[in-house]
Amino acid sequence: MSTPADNPFAALQRVLHEPHRLALVSALAAAVDGLSFNELKETCDLTDGNLNRHLKALEDEGIIAQRKSAESGKGRPRTTVTLTPSGRKRFVKYLETLEEVLMQAAASVGAETGRRAPGGLFVIPRPSRA
Amino acid sequence: MSTPADNPFAALQRVLHEPHRLALVSALAAAVDGLSFNELKETCDLTDGNLNRHLKALEDEGIIAQRKSAESGKGRPRTTVTLTPSGRKRFVKYLETLEEVLMQAAASVGAETGRRAPGGLFVIPRPSRA
Repeated sequence: MSTPADNPFAALQRVLHEPHRLALVSALAAAVDGLSFNELKETCDLTDGNLNRHLKALEDEGIIAQRKSAESGKGRPRTTVTLTPSGRKRFVKYLETLEEVLMQAAASVGAETGRRAPGGLFVIPRPSRA
Repeated sequence: MSTPADNPFAALQRVLHEPHRLALVSALAAAVDGLSFNELKETCDLTDGNLNRHLKALEDEGIIAQRKSAESGKGRPRTTVTLTPSGRKRFVKYLETLEEVLMQAAASVGAETGRRAPGGLFVIPRPSRA
């Protein structure tokens, strides 16, 4: 399974694979108008510093965009973060690869039950809880 | 979604989440008698140094075991790597969490199609390829 076609593990996009970034991008994918810095911080349970670091990594790759605007009636800028159209495409691609990984791994832990149905359905074999 | 129950992203076990380690453990999960160092190297397309580094991290966590034995007729030891029983349990648990992550993320990119059926079936919404 060392060829790219057979090795979905190697095809996982690392910039999206980090758990906090997965949570961030997933939250943004569901928010049409974007999310504020504070909303993301709370949703993903991150510190200011960690959130800034992950947003910078995602922005450098063109996956998200940050827009600063003055809050109405106050001088403090408000940061709104949105998923870019190309970021959304990459995320969907990543999820498809992750699905392949999960399918292959699930088959490994119980080949007789890990299976894929036409149309992208699959199931993880669960150990019996007797 | 900042509580653990609602945040599968935070529950992903990082020692298993790294793509090369996912590939390694997945290969080992399917190999009842374990795999040799060279088999793992080829299967996962890793250098000696990288494979050693990942195996050490997994061994330190008790996920895999390494056994050295003299090759028949030669003095050179042969390393056989196996998944431990507790490693297998952790891997199955990790895959269940990954399934939750994938389900939640798939719902985010297209809430109307990301869905979960009873029994652990789900489907990733695919963008239409018109």
